[in-house]
Amino acid sequence: MSYRAPLEDMVFLIDEVLQAGDALGGLPGFDELGVGPDLSTALLDEAGKLAGGVLAPLRRNGDTNPTTCVDKRIHIPDGHAEALRQMGEGGWIGISADPEYGGQGLPEIYATAGHEMWNASNMSLALAPMLSCGSALAIHAHGSEEQKATYLEKLHTGEWMGTMNLTESGAGSDLGVMKARAVPEGDHYLITGQKIFITWGDHEVTDNIIHLVLAKLPDAPEGSRGISLFIVPKFLVNEDGSLGERNDVYAVSTEHKLGIHASPTCVMAYGDNGGAIGYLLGEENKGLAAMFTMMNEARLKVGVQGLGVADGALQQATAYARERVQGGVPIIEHPDVKRMLLNMKALTEAMRALVYAEAITMDLAHRGAEAERAAQQARIDLMIPIIKAWCTEAGVEVTSQGVQVHGGMGYVEETGAAQYLRDARIAPIYEGTNGIQAADLVARKLGRDGGDTMRAVLDMVRDTVAALKDTGDARLAVMAKGLEGALAEQELSTQFVLEALAGAPNTALAGAFDYLMQSGYLFGGWQLARGALVAFAQLKAGSDNPFYAAKVATAAHYAEQLLPRCAGHGGAVRAAGGVQQDYPLEWI
Amino acid sequence: MSYRAPLEDMVFLIDEVLQAGDALGGLPGFDELGVGPDLSTALLDEAGKLAGGVLAPLRRNGDTNPTTCVDKRIHIPDGHAEALRQMGEGGWIGISADPEYGGQGLPEIYATAGHEMWNASNMSLALAPMLSCGSALAIHAHGSEEQKATYLEKLHTGEWMGTMNLTESGAGSDLGVMKARAVPEGDHYLITGQKIFITWGDHEVTDNIIHLVLAKLPDAPEGSRGISLFIVPKFLVNEDGSLGERNDVYAVSTEHKLGIHASPTCVMAYGDNGGAIGYLLGEENKGLAAMFTMMNEARLKVGVQGLGVADGALQQATAYARERVQGGVPIIEHPDVKRMLLNMKALTEAMRALVYAEAITMDLAHRGAEAERAAQQARIDLMIPIIKAWCTEAGVEVTSQGVQVHGGMGYVEETGAAQYLRDARIAPIYEGTNGIQAADLVARKLGRDGGDTMRAVLDMVRDTVAALKDTGDARLAVMAKGLEGALAEQELSTQFVLEALAGAPNTALAGAFDYLMQSGYLFGGWQLARGALVAFAQLKAGSDNPFYAAKVATAAHYAEQLLPRCAGHGGAVRAAGGVQQDYPLEWI
Repeated sequence: MSYRAPLEDMVFLIDEVLQAGDALGGLPGFDELGVGPDLSTALLDEAGKLAGGVLAPLRRNGDTNPTTCVDKRIHIPDGHAEALRQMGEGGWIGISADPEYGGQGLPEIYATAGHEMWNASNMSLALAPMLSCGSALAIHAHGSEEQKATYLEKLHTGEWMGTMNLTESGAGSDLGVMKARAVPEGDHYLITGQKIFITWGDHEVTDNIIHLVLAKLPDAPEGSRGISLFIVPKFLVNEDGSLGERNDVYAVSTEHKLGIHASPTCVMAYGDNGGAIGYLLGEENKGLAAMFTMMNEARLKVGVQGLGVADGALQQATAYARERVQGGVPIIEHPDVKRMLLNMKALTEAMRALVYAEAITMDLAHRGAEAERAAQQARIDLMIPIIKAWCTEAGVEVTSQGVQVHGGMGYVEETGAAQYLRDARIAPIYEGTNGIQAADLVARKLGRDGGDTMRAVLDMVRDTVAALKDTGDARLAVMAKGLEGALAEQELSTQFVLEALAGAPNTALAGAFDYLMQSGYLFGGWQLARGALVAFAQLKAGSDNPFYAAKVATAAHYAEQLLPRCAGHGGAVRAAGGVQQDYPLEWI
Repeated sequence: MSYRAPLEDMVFLIDEVLQAGDALGGLPGFDELGVGPDLSTALLDEAGKLAGGVLAPLRRNGDTNPTTCVDKRIHIPDGHAEALRQMGEGGWIGISADPEYGGQGLPEIYATAGHEMWNASNMSLALAPMLSCGSALAIHAHGSEEQKATYLEKLHTGEWMGTMNLTESGAGSDLGVMKARAVPEGDHYLITGQKIFITWGDHEVTDNIIHLVLAKLPDAPEGSRGISLFIVPKFLVNEDGSLGERNDVYAVSTEHKLGIHASPTCVMAYGDNGGAIGYLLGEENKGLAAMFTMMNEARLKVGVQGLGVADGALQQATAYARERVQGGVPIIEHPDVKRMLLNMKALTEAMRALVYAEAITMDLAHRGAEAERAAQQARIDLMIPIIKAWCTEAGVEVTSQGVQVHGGMGYVEETGAAQYLRDARIAPIYEGTNGIQAADLVARKLGRDGGDTMRAVLDMVRDTVAALKDTGDARLAVMAKGLEGALAEQELSTQFVLEALAGAPNTALAGAFDYLMQSGYLFGGWQLARGALVAFAQLKAGSDNPFYAAKVATAAHYAEQLLPRCAGHGGAVRAAGGVQQDYPLEWI
């Protein structure tokens, strides 16, 4: 199961299409990094070696030797601890984190590309630094100077790891009803309660684990406005930074899951022996808001999981289709197998183009010119639910197609194709189900500005359509036509959803998922088209690099084979107000 | 994990919509059975008890204790042998088989309904009688009187079981290159070679196993015209019917698969100790043709697997969504969860309506009035690849949605939701991959009569649209509009595919899968609409049965939410000749 990082496409997107040097190179904190092709190539080449040489070889072993919990000790499959140490030592965990606290201070786009590689080569393993980064971001945003000094550098360098503890057995999508409690005691709180689905909740890979835990104070307001966020280290930290007492937090079991077997998903018990010592992070009763400040980063990264696992499946299926002979020819020559592989490739590259573009937006929203930040933030806020949900749905589709390309061999676990599908299947569920993403897109992101941000993006799509037409090229004309049709569908659906929001919000919510999917196919196609324009310019300037010719052809294939889905989703959106609304629940 | 057979929908389809009594009751062999509601109710009620009471409780245990092969002996999970014995004793295995040889002689529609229940409750177990029936059908169609007398009754009653041995490691979709050999010796042949992916290839559930094996005679013609079919019993059968010597055929291993864990998928070694004794079935070198005579039945049954496993997943997800509370209400009240459940329900009922309708066609093609048989055969030939592929794709979608409805709990194996998805994922692969079904639909079924049969079916859809409009009912008008749009899309795509077949067959093949899916959504919707018309008439006649009202509403939901997909697939079909054709394989 070899994995080769798609460095050519990555550098093409980062430096030729998105021109990260121009877009980001002058921003505060980035101005001395030399953002540009040399940096991209050097960085991504190293990351590719780590992903292909260290992470990928562990993928099957981790799947067939799931993590276990025996006597409150978590066992991780062989090799995974060492791989995580190498990721930490290489600076990959804190790659985009604050250099003041041990981070590398690089743009989000490089963290995104690295994260793609970790997920393509080993999704279980990629979850560990992902959760660590999330908890570090929360501490960075809301911690006191002392908290930041105590925890951040060790999290960024991988010396310690971090977790996020939100869910309880009765509190999943609705956190307001959680039961975990925090009682003040001196300079800290005593935390009690049980959390479930805690990714990499416990292990002995690092000396310490920093848990971020949502819990309620005594007499806190009801519901989601009464939740506070706490730092609960596995081992208390002495003033000199050395490790002190073992805290009262233990993993009591791990889940037996469909996939991501090497990622321990723990039930965590807090305070079974009197109370776990926790420290308030941010303000009392503002815990949920503190969690949400890093939601965009986390959801972008889950979208990247869909992308990464899709690319892993694509690489394996393509290699198999070139080797496997049926009817006297390699099956890649069979028209239906070629169709499947091209759909997989076009979807994967569309995801990458979309995700990387919005990784740039993320930095612009945080560090761009003051006057533009609000617009960039509105754009990233709009795009995040689309990226999270569309890329994870596409990840499931591509990995399922990867199984299909293998025929009967795809159903046999040893082949490794089915693991991509099993691993991919979690991503539409966690970090807010895709149904929740759809509701967020429609009710919050579209609703709060009456569709202004969506329309601004659609104007950019329209500009791209015009640029495609201007080239006079036949294949770019295919893309122009496809995008134009999808754009018209999008405008109809957007109008419908906005009107429904005003008068019949449940109609908007019932069509929200299809509206999100429709948006994803359109925006993925738009970003592919932007790349195709750049590639076309290179070809016109005399390049004979087949990579550029392939970019143009892949975009046209996407237009022909995948953009028609926008009409299917659009039709469902605009019909959501009828029968579905009135259908009595007791008839289901 | 309880399963309740959907008896109301089954009897509604069989007796009210399809009017099996009128359609089949007078046919030779059926004329003394009393085909009608009383028979349906009595039969299906019994089958439902067996499925819900015996098969369903074994489903999880079979998944967590996969079959193993140790020292050439296959271990089957506890309880499965006893369940198979009960199926045999109840007459369910030979339910539609020839009564002259121990079968029940009932119409195919009852076998289909039973098969749905076995698959909904326990897909691994359902495979055993499915393969037995297939091998019995082949012996019935091509065997000598002696062969029929020796094997059929015992296969039909479940005293023995049968298998199908086609695939080799180098010969999957292309059987012409197989290596298994058969050398004549006296009144029999000596078979040598290795077969893979043999479902229920060995076990000790029954005293004997009758293997049907494809192999090549010495000096046989090259390719698929040089393949013969042999009966190879595990134990040779003496003239008095008692069991004789152990034959030289052994299971050497079982596959570790994504799903259907309780169904042993065996590597079978023939003749490692000198040669397995086999008896020619049918004529020399006509083995593939003999296999294909039962292909329609086998592929219909794989389509029913998609239906069955979808209904299992739907029942579990619906029960969960009624119980699980988030945000203060059961999640079934959340618009997006309701959308998922209604899509699952509408797809499942559309599959059932389509499959049951064509089970009637199957009997009419075999036993109907002489003058009509050819047309019925042409119709079933057209429908079979659509049923096999569309229902199995829909099976994967519905079971995946079932996981999603459960949220994080769906990803935990103990819940049982993920098993439906893992089990369902094989069905698009075996019995001819869905890509092969699509090629069959386009290149053979559409091509051989220039689209005449397709057009004849589309005329019937048009009649249904007219009947929907005639009712004047608002929800049936929704269905009429949806079907009318899908019909227009179908006509465009059919025209395109027929023209491509004439001049650019690879273009037709490249769009074949989407053409098949488009056809499936249309025909599933058509059959739902036929049911809705019947239900509407009952309501108009004064019935207050909510079942009828639900049938009308479900059809309208399908029209609004699922028929729009026809446009998406149609767009892909009609674009298949462009970029995809020219895309160089080395760029993928």
